[in-house]
Amino acid sequence: MTDPIPVYLDCDTGVDDAVALAYLLRSPSIDLVGIGTVSGNTSAAQAARNTLDLLALAGADGIPVAVGAHHHSSHEYSGGAAHVHGDNGIGGVELPRSGREPEAVSAVELLIDLSHRYAGRLHVLTIGPMTNIIEALEADPTLPERIAEVTTMGGAANVPGNITAVAEANVFNDPAAADALLTADWDITLVPLDATMEHTLSEADRVTLAEASDPLLRAVGGMLDLYFDFYRPTYGIRTCALHDPLAAVIAAGGTTITRGPRVPVRVDTTHGPGRGQTIADLRGQRLGDRDHPGARTRVVLDVDGSISSHLMQVLTGERPPR
Amino acid sequence: MTDPIPVYLDCDTGVDDAVALAYLLRSPSIDLVGIGTVSGNTSAAQAARNTLDLLALAGADGIPVAVGAHHHSSHEYSGGAAHVHGDNGIGGVELPRSGREPEAVSAVELLIDLSHRYAGRLHVLTIGPMTNIIEALEADPTLPERIAEVTTMGGAANVPGNITAVAEANVFNDPAAADALLTADWDITLVPLDATMEHTLSEADRVTLAEASDPLLRAVGGMLDLYFDFYRPTYGIRTCALHDPLAAVIAAGGTTITRGPRVPVRVDTTHGPGRGQTIADLRGQRLGDRDHPGARTRVVLDVDGSISSHLMQVLTGERPPR
Repeated sequence: MTDPIPVYLDCDTGVDDAVALAYLLRSPSIDLVGIGTVSGNTSAAQAARNTLDLLALAGADGIPVAVGAHHHSSHEYSGGAAHVHGDNGIGGVELPRSGREPEAVSAVELLIDLSHRYAGRLHVLTIGPMTNIIEALEADPTLPERIAEVTTMGGAANVPGNITAVAEANVFNDPAAADALLTADWDITLVPLDATMEHTLSEADRVTLAEASDPLLRAVGGMLDLYFDFYRPTYGIRTCALHDPLAAVIAAGGTTITRGPRVPVRVDTTHGPGRGQTIADLRGQRLGDRDHPGARTRVVLDVDGSISSHLMQVLTGERPPR
Repeated sequence: MTDPIPVYLDCDTGVDDAVALAYLLRSPSIDLVGIGTVSGNTSAAQAARNTLDLLALAGADGIPVAVGAHHHSSHEYSGGAAHVHGDNGIGGVELPRSGREPEAVSAVELLIDLSHRYAGRLHVLTIGPMTNIIEALEADPTLPERIAEVTTMGGAANVPGNITAVAEANVFNDPAAADALLTADWDITLVPLDATMEHTLSEADRVTLAEASDPLLRAVGGMLDLYFDFYRPTYGIRTCALHDPLAAVIAAGGTTITRGPRVPVRVDTTHGPGRGQTIADLRGQRLGDRDHPGARTRVVLDVDGSISSHLMQVLTGERPPR
């Protein structure tokens, strides 16, 4: 068994963020050393509240949570996605209120501090808009030197977007920030809709969570109820895409990437119809993955096995620690 | 048997344009009533020369050919794609020179004239950049009222482009023209790379053409030699994508569209990284084709059967007229 990976999580908690958070807390491969929040699914402040309350339910009150950017780098926060994630970001579920408050420092300060404490080992996992990351890169351009790897849920390569025809929500919410993250000097694993839309959770699994004796799982199962409603027209059944959870599973090494070439990726920051699109150069991949020389962003197009099975095993503790 | 469809062809002949032209001349479903040329694979003037010479080989000297736009609406013609189509546009094959010259009128004038002569019945088939079409729409905004349908080879929806990461050549060569075509008030069948890259011609079929006694087929088989070289790295074998031929087959009703929702389509005319991308709103199509109310552009994602078999049957006359 290798040492767990120290992870800074940047999130906008969020129903699927909550699932990812529960997975990261239970994964023996991960040492969650700090969490920053950002506006996206809900406000940065509400995301921090949700995160603190989930950590309390999980008995993980030692993990620092810092509030990050409320507004995005190019525009003001516009109120989140209540129709997807509920008014409070977590499907309307009322969690027991943790007595803990967010850190006095900002998410950017927390990230930079952790990058020194875990220099060369820290893994950055972003599952919300990347506003905190562009601010951290601006505050300290040497940050990438101390980061082992970045895993980012965002974008859509060869599939439609989920906010516009071509743009995915995390990227669309702050295209300039996404472009800054994707062009900084570090190794990135980008987890776009191409992969995440192909991995779903079943209603039976949701009920297992909702009826668990473990209060964390029960809360997560409850908040997935609204999220399943949202995805019903997309899939024709009650289910949900595993966007943020898949990024967490990949960061934890819980699956093998079966298709994921390293290619140049840019974000469309114009105000044209392609705004917020993640433009990955996937030409010439018909015969198999072909890495572009020098490209440092791996675009995940497919992964091995059932992500929902792995997720459920880790969440419910059915899987022995490695 | 229904009456053949009167077709105005707009082309930049071009190796695959030549294959499409040969098919249209041999298809019993098509009455090719006029051809306009445009710069793209080669110059508009060279495309007209190639077209006239091919028509002479086919014994089809009655079909008018008019030279269209040399420069595109937003930029000057930059010299074509000699590495794909050869210096003369037709793979370096020297055709017997037809004595015929292009019409005195421009492609735009020819198209508008034909739209009156075949009012309500004329089918427009574009297999090059759409510069002549934007010029025709500007010259006569009532043109769409007299056109039965438009079929256009262009764009890339859920697959990479072939000029940039997201842009297909015909659209990239004149994004404003493509946007004008796609937003005009007529029914459009858009044939993007999603469909055309999945249909190829085999080396055996190419040899059949190259060794035919029919001089038109022999010429086409010869010019495909260079084109097959170009596509070898893409497919791993000597073959070619059937871009323009597929659009011709669809216009002739020679295949059934199995996936082709009618959705809003726009072209990115910015100068950002998405320039020339054809943005089709294909969200919400996971459970099957779902037409958007009012959308008049059908985006062909998949067609039925083997296009190369049908193409070879029509070209070689093995298929009885319907």
